[in-house]
Amino acid sequence: MVGDMTGRSTLLTNIGELTTNEPGLGRLRDAALVLEGERVAWVGEAAAAPLADEAVDVAGRAVLPGWVDSHTHLVFAGDRTAEFEARMAGAPYTAGGIAVTVAATREASDEELAATLARHLAEAARQGTTCVETKTGYGLTVADERRAARIAADVADEVTFLGAHLVPEGTDPGSYLDLVCGEMLDAVAGYVRWADVFCETGAFDEEQNARVLRAAADRGLGLRVHGNQLGRGPGVRLAVRHGAASVDHCTHLADADVEALAGSDTVATLLPACDLSTRQPLAPARRLLDAGATIALATNANPGSSYTTSMAFCVATAVLQMGLSVDEAVWAATAGGARALRRDAGDGAVGVLRVGARADVHVLDAPSVTHLAYRPGVPLTWAVWREGRRVS
Amino acid sequence: MVGDMTGRSTLLTNIGELTTNEPGLGRLRDAALVLEGERVAWVGEAAAAPLADEAVDVAGRAVLPGWVDSHTHLVFAGDRTAEFEARMAGAPYTAGGIAVTVAATREASDEELAATLARHLAEAARQGTTCVETKTGYGLTVADERRAARIAADVADEVTFLGAHLVPEGTDPGSYLDLVCGEMLDAVAGYVRWADVFCETGAFDEEQNARVLRAAADRGLGLRVHGNQLGRGPGVRLAVRHGAASVDHCTHLADADVEALAGSDTVATLLPACDLSTRQPLAPARRLLDAGATIALATNANPGSSYTTSMAFCVATAVLQMGLSVDEAVWAATAGGARALRRDAGDGAVGVLRVGARADVHVLDAPSVTHLAYRPGVPLTWAVWREGRRVS
Ligand SMILES: [Zn+2]
Ligand SMILES: [Zn+2]
Repeated sequence: MVGDMTGRSTLLTNIGELTTNEPGLGRLRDAALVLEGERVAWVGEAAAAPLADEAVDVAGRAVLPGWVDSHTHLVFAGDRTAEFEARMAGAPYTAGGIAVTVAATREASDEELAATLARHLAEAARQGTTCVETKTGYGLTVADERRAARIAADVADEVTFLGAHLVPEGTDPGSYLDLVCGEMLDAVAGYVRWADVFCETGAFDEEQNARVLRAAADRGLGLRVHGNQLGRGPGVRLAVRHGAASVDHCTHLADADVEALAGSDTVATLLPACDLSTRQPLAPARRLLDAGATIALATNANPGSSYTTSMAFCVATAVLQMGLSVDEAVWAATAGGARALRRDAGDGAVGVLRVGARADVHVLDAPSVTHLAYRPGVPLTWAVWREGRRVS
Repeated sequence: MVGDMTGRSTLLTNIGELTTNEPGLGRLRDAALVLEGERVAWVGEAAAAPLADEAVDVAGRAVLPGWVDSHTHLVFAGDRTAEFEARMAGAPYTAGGIAVTVAATREASDEELAATLARHLAEAARQGTTCVETKTGYGLTVADERRAARIAADVADEVTFLGAHLVPEGTDPGSYLDLVCGEMLDAVAGYVRWADVFCETGAFDEEQNARVLRAAADRGLGLRVHGNQLGRGPGVRLAVRHGAASVDHCTHLADADVEALAGSDTVATLLPACDLSTRQPLAPARRLLDAGATIALATNANPGSSYTTSMAFCVATAVLQMGLSVDEAVWAATAGGARALRRDAGDGAVGVLRVGARADVHVLDAPSVTHLAYRPGVPLTWAVWREGRRVS
């Protein structure tokens, strides 16, 4: 057996439907899975399963990899319920509300930020999410961005620097960009793997964002881009040109954007809960898949534009309203997210259940993954293992 | 104190936001609630609350009446997952799939039907639903309809006879209608309070349905109508003309339908999860409210067109996609459902929290009902009391 030989092993057996996301394995019926330490040690037919220290009979339930939520903003403080209410009463969504969260986040103690982050990660885990990316971007000073990066790095799987979220009030755009590309990047570099830019009208323009991406790449960071959320724009073009791992939102795409994504390794990360919560159209998922692009689904969990941790809601919306099949949506919310985080290959890969993958397992209280869309809103998570430890 | 004086009393205190749905009470902050036996015995400011046998500190959480799900079809057997998958792959929705459930339901034992119903009611209760209407309509013989009515009457709050669901295969429509209006109605009358007809192309026409409604009214049953689901048609007109308590679906409405509803006591019961699960447009909720009609939100839980028990999903969809405010959507899913079932007034009323109302209480793990739409998909039910007993 492979895996961490020092760890205890757990056999999950009597799996009615096992979604592996591994091309050579596909979907298995009457399957079993052995977790050993932090890794998957065995996958196959239940009748052929080896013994383990502990056995869990899942009684015909469906099993899939834990959700990979590749886009969240969870280092925050403060409340924006009233802004949401105003938007539902007809006020337009703008990036302006971000400043409210910036002010509250700066005022909060380290302990408060860490507790809020931990509470949301635990909430996500109870719903089957086992790998989470989260971002800075509500600090916007060297000290506050470093603090957010440090707090996130303690608990999140992936951390992204988003100093270029917006120009903080009372700051000159040019000198703020100098800060982001110099001192701020240096301050966070030890805590983050990724840098991200917010490429929308009202935030930074294409050339300013390109400068941030170059500075981040020079320091060895991987790149991500927020783009094409509020209208067509240069976000996708910028992401593809710089070899970003992902361009996120993609709500408004020109044909050239779709083609550029299809011809690149950049994942289009779609955020349907955000589209709905800002009363935008839903992103053109079908068009992207039909063109040959790779898509991921993520929550964009944040207190402004999308305050949900529910990957199941994103999957149900993708199937019911964005023209995806259940298999396409489930793949995008697991393996697609892993691809967007470049965690889809090698030892400890996430979003996949094969020998050597991280033991991140989601058991549904349902006989098939189809029920995620067939039964929208019903809490279907029955059990969750993350890195081999039962977390729900 | 009013209420059942023989019952134990429970004080819910430190309620951050209390939605009462009672015009004279409105929404309270820093509130408390006393349950005694099966009734609400006291509502008011926490600081003025009386003592009770037991106290539960809800720590600032939001409290509202339990959901009233006024439209479900939960006496069924069999599986239609494959039909849902086919529909998501592009197959159109027709009423044809109902025959699959009819065949499976007839084959099932009483115990199997009762267990399936109980499982779904328990699932609904865990999500805050405390009052449920459910229907016959998968039997379509005298014996099978009577059996379904009896099983439903054992556990559901309200039971509706839907013998006129469709003409069973191998049966002449005329003689089936004779059966429905005669022997079948007599057989179920002791178990049901309501009769319902399915007024859609492919089911029964307006005159056939009118005959069923007259026969039901003659036996003292209240009336409900399925109408305007798959296209414009006579459903709303029929419902209003016969003084039905509710016309359900209302997805496709002519201006004359909206006007007729606004000028009547017939509630328009909207089923957004069904609209989404059949890839129909969402019902024109805003148009109905603006015209002065009364609306309810319900799940239409059934294995074909809408297999969810999540009232929270219906509320979130109504706010995010149907133009309702949170208050309008929450009212429609509680007091609106109660109105559609004529349970909104008097002792033991549901969908409302005032002295003498049924002690059906839903505590959210959130500071306000707004979070039901602000946090779509996140399971927010923290505690539930039904008829004064804690059920979750
Ligand atoms: Zn974002
Ligand atoms: Zn129905």
